[in-house]
Amino acid sequence: MSLLGGPVSVVSAGAAMLADALEADQVRVDWRPPLERLVPDPEVDLANQRAVARMLAARPRWVGVGTAVEVIPGMRPDLLLHSGPPMRWEAASGPMRGALEGALRLEGRDSADLEPCHVHMAVGPMAGVVSAGMPVVIVEDETSGIRAYSNLNEGLGRVLRYGANDEAVLERLRWMASVLGPDLGRALESGPIDLGAINQKALQMGDELHNRHRAATSMVFRELALRGLSAESLRFIDQNDYFYLNLVMASAKAACEAAAGVDQSTLVVSMARNGTEFGIRVSGEPRRWFTAAAAVPVGLFLGSYTQEDANPDIGDSAITETFGLGGFAMAAAPAITRVVGGTAQTAVDASLEMYEITLEENSNHQIPALDFRGSPTGIDVRRVVETGIQPLINTGIAHREAGIGQIGAGLVRAPLEPFLAAHLHLARARPDGAPQ
Amino acid sequence: MSLLGGPVSVVSAGAAMLADALEADQVRVDWRPPLERLVPDPEVDLANQRAVARMLAARPRWVGVGTAVEVIPGMRPDLLLHSGPPMRWEAASGPMRGALEGALRLEGRDSADLEPCHVHMAVGPMAGVVSAGMPVVIVEDETSGIRAYSNLNEGLGRVLRYGANDEAVLERLRWMASVLGPDLGRALESGPIDLGAINQKALQMGDELHNRHRAATSMVFRELALRGLSAESLRFIDQNDYFYLNLVMASAKAACEAAAGVDQSTLVVSMARNGTEFGIRVSGEPRRWFTAAAAVPVGLFLGSYTQEDANPDIGDSAITETFGLGGFAMAAAPAITRVVGGTAQTAVDASLEMYEITLEENSNHQIPALDFRGSPTGIDVRRVVETGIQPLINTGIAHREAGIGQIGAGLVRAPLEPFLAAHLHLARARPDGAPQ
Repeated sequence: MSLLGGPVSVVSAGAAMLADALEADQVRVDWRPPLERLVPDPEVDLANQRAVARMLAARPRWVGVGTAVEVIPGMRPDLLLHSGPPMRWEAASGPMRGALEGALRLEGRDSADLEPCHVHMAVGPMAGVVSAGMPVVIVEDETSGIRAYSNLNEGLGRVLRYGANDEAVLERLRWMASVLGPDLGRALESGPIDLGAINQKALQMGDELHNRHRAATSMVFRELALRGLSAESLRFIDQNDYFYLNLVMASAKAACEAAAGVDQSTLVVSMARNGTEFGIRVSGEPRRWFTAAAAVPVGLFLGSYTQEDANPDIGDSAITETFGLGGFAMAAAPAITRVVGGTAQTAVDASLEMYEITLEENSNHQIPALDFRGSPTGIDVRRVVETGIQPLINTGIAHREAGIGQIGAGLVRAPLEPFLAAHLHLARARPDGAPQ
Repeated sequence: MSLLGGPVSVVSAGAAMLADALEADQVRVDWRPPLERLVPDPEVDLANQRAVARMLAARPRWVGVGTAVEVIPGMRPDLLLHSGPPMRWEAASGPMRGALEGALRLEGRDSADLEPCHVHMAVGPMAGVVSAGMPVVIVEDETSGIRAYSNLNEGLGRVLRYGANDEAVLERLRWMASVLGPDLGRALESGPIDLGAINQKALQMGDELHNRHRAATSMVFRELALRGLSAESLRFIDQNDYFYLNLVMASAKAACEAAAGVDQSTLVVSMARNGTEFGIRVSGEPRRWFTAAAAVPVGLFLGSYTQEDANPDIGDSAITETFGLGGFAMAAAPAITRVVGGTAQTAVDASLEMYEITLEENSNHQIPALDFRGSPTGIDVRRVVETGIQPLINTGIAHREAGIGQIGAGLVRAPLEPFLAAHLHLARARPDGAPQ
């Protein structure tokens, strides 16, 4: 059973006059003139308050580890999940193709159907490829009971999520399935780990929880060590400060799905990229994707790589921004500027700007540098349309060719077109039948 | 053999006209008019550059754990070490008396001599009492080879360092000597732990390393878990985010002692308080203490405790500020404001002010919120005298009666008198024989 429960429709509507401006500078934080002044709509406001309240009420806990085909709703042996909105094989970018081909070899198959992780209550960073035999984390929102899933983070360097698929990559994935996953599952038998509490503490320890996870990984390491995780698995986690990324992504997915399905709500419940297209889903119409071409992140590059080598934006990790973390919580993580560029002041400014397009401040995600103001949470499609402020995403940058891997990290702005399309679609579906 | 190698002299010189102003507001960061315009002295400047360079070159590593009487220079069974400048039994404040009496019972003695930790290359937080049988950490500055020592942190609540000395307190100290100390010693047999690297990372993770140690404790926990520390000892460390305090204090002590003994240098190499008096030691005359009455910290109080319950400033932990951490690195730790008071902006302002009285910026202690500027390091007595800016110290607050324990945390300014006294003393010792 897929989450969407029926045929998926993809709406790629554009605002052609914006295209040039969008391509010119994806990361600038300058004020833009309002695109459109919307008439206040108390019914939509009420729907949004109901939806975002569910997001804020989320209490994500790591409850277990299982094999994808056994625990992910609708997963099957002849299916590969991928990041972002729906995509055909032929449209896959270099790193996505590399990851899909690696997963096929891992599973010993010649072909498989493709569906988004998001459609199956799952999320995966970068290519986000999940195959039937992979171990996945199970995260439950204690408040709603909703469960979400993510694969386990492979570490840095040559890894499947960046499109590398040589034998060493597949060997590591086999070890993760046979050793790490079961080890973690045993460690969790004594009870869930409170990810909400770790998220709150991590924001007070310099993580923004999209590109910086050293504090959160340290705290989950402490929990796992106390539960007797094997030395081998502890060493693996210790070598990879991104280990927590997949856990916070599943936390955010569970919280966002709790907020999905409120009639008329213009709250964004997914932002995701497949390396070719960027897509959003909205609470009032969660079965529909609104998409546009994915932009290319701008940032700092490793070694001799340059902007020309960068793949378009890729990964489900923008679920962290959808939940008010990552780029939205940059004020909590001035050290992230060493990875994605900018200064301590631009990091603060980025968070302050995101309050303009969000419905709430999340008291579970307090930012010390803003005197413990809650992070800007719950993107409202209408506010994005009114202000023209594009959601800011912190992200890793993949090489555009398969198998080379991460070449940098940086910032990217969500394209405006999907927000305009979602606005028009929801407005047309209103009783009065026409956009304002 | 004591560090001072001879009779200790204590100079308590005052500037009577300042006393009222000092007592009025110990924590304000307002600009003050210069106290005295000093004639530039290239010889002193050169001496200070030599001294502070040694402080900056320090590479502290945790190399072992031993029993105080076996490893601390000059330690003996009939001696108790205490925090701050030299002190007689009769002058001990409530929490200091409680800690000294507890240590006597722990050692099964009726009496003991008293000497400062600092004189024996050791440091201890709050009462800072070290007795012969206690386990101590051994920290070595790899650059100078200098070793410094500290006791192990007991945790929160009723603990000896705040003057509690009931049977439960002594039982915990016995467990630390019989189990925790030997466990840690075994874990370190595979090689030292690089505390300098942890200090640098912790400042990027919201610790200022005097009152916030969650990140640093997490990182040292990771190291110890990977070395197979017992589950019992890991649990003890996990319950106490202050575990790292004693390690960073020993790091700072080693670095500061490396800078001690440069003729004519006005660099401060110790700031320490015994609950009654505040004292400093200066590089050019390290055998001498310059003291004044300890001020009372101003801060936030637990439960129904108030400012009236607060003991005067106590502990060797101001060695962290002497090394450019703690109050000097507050800009790295906006979350500390929840513990000591103030706002994110006052935390930044505190660090910025401390650059006015320090000789260098420590590139091993970068502050992300200041765009990775090195923390203000190396207090120059002359600059304090010229500007009237009093060093800012983050500190825990003890109840003034023995055995009650911690009642809050806050900020305190070092009294100016010891700096004036040190300046006059060093200036008189110059070839021209008179203060400028």
